[in-house]
Amino acid sequence: MPYSHTSDYPADILARAAKIRLVCFDVDGTLTDGRLFFDSDGREVKAFHVLDGQGLALLRQVGIAVVFVTARTSSIVDRRAAELGVAAHQGIKDKAACVGEIVARAGMTAEQLAYMGDDLGDLAPMATAGLAVAPANAHAWVRERVHWRTTARGGAGAARELCDLLLAAQGHADTLLAEATRR
Amino acid sequence: MPYSHTSDYPADILARAAKIRLVCFDVDGTLTDGRLFFDSDGREVKAFHVLDGQGLALLRQVGIAVVFVTARTSSIVDRRAAELGVAAHQGIKDKAACVGEIVARAGMTAEQLAYMGDDLGDLAPMATAGLAVAPANAHAWVRERVHWRTTARGGAGAARELCDLLLAAQGHADTLLAEATRR
Amino acid sequence: MPYSHTSDYPADILARAAKIRLVCFDVDGTLTDGRLFFDSDGREVKAFHVLDGQGLALLRQVGIAVVFVTARTSSIVDRRAAELGVAAHQGIKDKAACVGEIVARAGMTAEQLAYMGDDLGDLAPMATAGLAVAPANAHAWVRERVHWRTTARGGAGAARELCDLLLAAQGHADTLLAEATRR
Amino acid sequence: MPYSHTSDYPADILARAAKIRLVCFDVDGTLTDGRLFFDSDGREVKAFHVLDGQGLALLRQVGIAVVFVTARTSSIVDRRAAELGVAAHQGIKDKAACVGEIVARAGMTAEQLAYMGDDLGDLAPMATAGLAVAPANAHAWVRERVHWRTTARGGAGAARELCDLLLAAQGHADTLLAEATRR
Repeated sequence: MPYSHTSDYPADILARAAKIRLVCFDVDGTLTDGRLFFDSDGREVKAFHVLDGQGLALLRQVGIAVVFVTARTSSIVDRRAAELGVAAHQGIKDKAACVGEIVARAGMTAEQLAYMGDDLGDLAPMATAGLAVAPANAHAWVRERVHWRTTARGGAGAARELCDLLLAAQGHADTLLAEATRR
Repeated sequence: MPYSHTSDYPADILARAAKIRLVCFDVDGTLTDGRLFFDSDGREVKAFHVLDGQGLALLRQVGIAVVFVTARTSSIVDRRAAELGVAAHQGIKDKAACVGEIVARAGMTAEQLAYMGDDLGDLAPMATAGLAVAPANAHAWVRERVHWRTTARGGAGAARELCDLLLAAQGHADTLLAEATRR
Repeated sequence: MPYSHTSDYPADILARAAKIRLVCFDVDGTLTDGRLFFDSDGREVKAFHVLDGQGLALLRQVGIAVVFVTARTSSIVDRRAAELGVAAHQGIKDKAACVGEIVARAGMTAEQLAYMGDDLGDLAPMATAGLAVAPANAHAWVRERVHWRTTARGGAGAARELCDLLLAAQGHADTLLAEATRR
Repeated sequence: MPYSHTSDYPADILARAAKIRLVCFDVDGTLTDGRLFFDSDGREVKAFHVLDGQGLALLRQVGIAVVFVTARTSSIVDRRAAELGVAAHQGIKDKAACVGEIVARAGMTAEQLAYMGDDLGDLAPMATAGLAVAPANAHAWVRERVHWRTTARGGAGAARELCDLLLAAQGHADTLLAEATRR
């Protein structure tokens, strides 16, 4: 079962999550279920999840920055990023360098960075992050090297679970929930 | 296992279901599995389920009104709604207000309204409904605040389970089943 | 686990399967997982399964006729039927009548007909068939009224399991397997 | 749980995997989940997986050749093969003959060939391979006739598990992992 109360999370994870000001998400396998759909006319299709979109919107609402960082390149990612109002860095071969620059430019420290990814190319940026997270179905090498794993699979609410953790750790969950119920 | 006999349902849920004259459905995550497919030409794709379509047709057949209420906007929802002969309210930021107007205009009471949804934006309209229902994979905040949860996930027959409950509670299930078997 | 040896099947099911000369398949939810994909340009998408296609080809190879019977209408079904060399009857409101005519025209008896489907509209033709089969995720009303249920879900190999049963019951499985291994 | 350490694999499978220089992959059901998507304009869609793509790239990096061999024909397979830099043999009715030629032309022995597939047409080439592998959801006839089965389903990381086995058996896993973590 996914977490729903602050007391559901381990104390050390809550401590890491309390400091986060920026979250970098890998795309394929993290914000999607890893499937790359191609059609016979040469088009590509990706499937994002509405639960994740709501979570990213809530992060922005409470002032936590969100960035997409992906090795592949697709207009689909630009579109989804624009829809959610977040920046997308595509075609990135050295994700650690890219993420390092983003953190430096924002004047943040590594402790303020959360990184979520699912495969080999995500290990280096994860090693620099205050909070490294993998979806339930991440590659075994990644699953064993993160601070926290979500119960949901990539593209099926995994990113939302990270958003929920951050909102809970920073004391926003109860307020957001009260507002939503009252409205 | 999904319910199939009237005696499978809890008595208090049957009592609530017996009064319903109008059902409002959230779309993404409720009538779909929450995945938002985008292709590289800018098109969007959603996946509805044939079991749900049959259930909504049966509701209309016995005189229970059906409405879709969604925060997003897509021509896909208009198309599916038209195919099923139901009204679709899209781009709705305040779902409670929208649903309240629909109920008032129909001259109904809150007890006659069922609402099915899966995320934060559905909590307010749910709070006004005689029967609030969530699909199996709804967000934890919603799952804990509904009268009843389906065994099926959104977009995979969750809406049909609500239809089946209403048909059973209002005494239509045996008739419909007998007609289908006889034909 | 799916069946793989003749001795895995119940004796009464093997006896029914031994007589089958014609198999009628519902489409949505039986040959697909029930999802109706729509895109924002008005196109529809359906997903068939390669395991099912191989099974239908094997049925034809041993002289068992295959027909698709569906209440909906889509050019996708015509295309898939043509690819597999089977007849497709679409837009069928009264499936029992349609199937009855097909059986009569072929000069067969009801005992020689197998019917596979997943929802209310499939109950009437099932009642006339020598062997009625439902995929694992069929509607509860159907699941309780068939001779046999597959372990696979619709669109994920359910139809193939029925093909395998027929091939085993009619003594073709070992030959086909030996041919495939030898080649 | 998928394997992640060399000691997780059976010794006889590691011995077979240590000799592999060429891997032939079936496509539908092996590199995809077996679903054949068709749209109402006559287009076909297939879904590959990003985890598999990363695995095939790693095989190439360590000098293991990769080939796709499929009975169907689609421009989608050519596109995915080109993207990954591997050869695709499509429309192949006699896969054993095709694979035999590839092995002979490369001046390899059968012991150096791994073959991964999921259905009847894959049994003959499998019988000639030093290592025959099936995804978790392969047809029962195939699952019972391979040296090794992955824990992942086709199109959801099954091919990546075979890549991981080969990398582990040939002593590349630790190096690749160290490089990825360091970078």
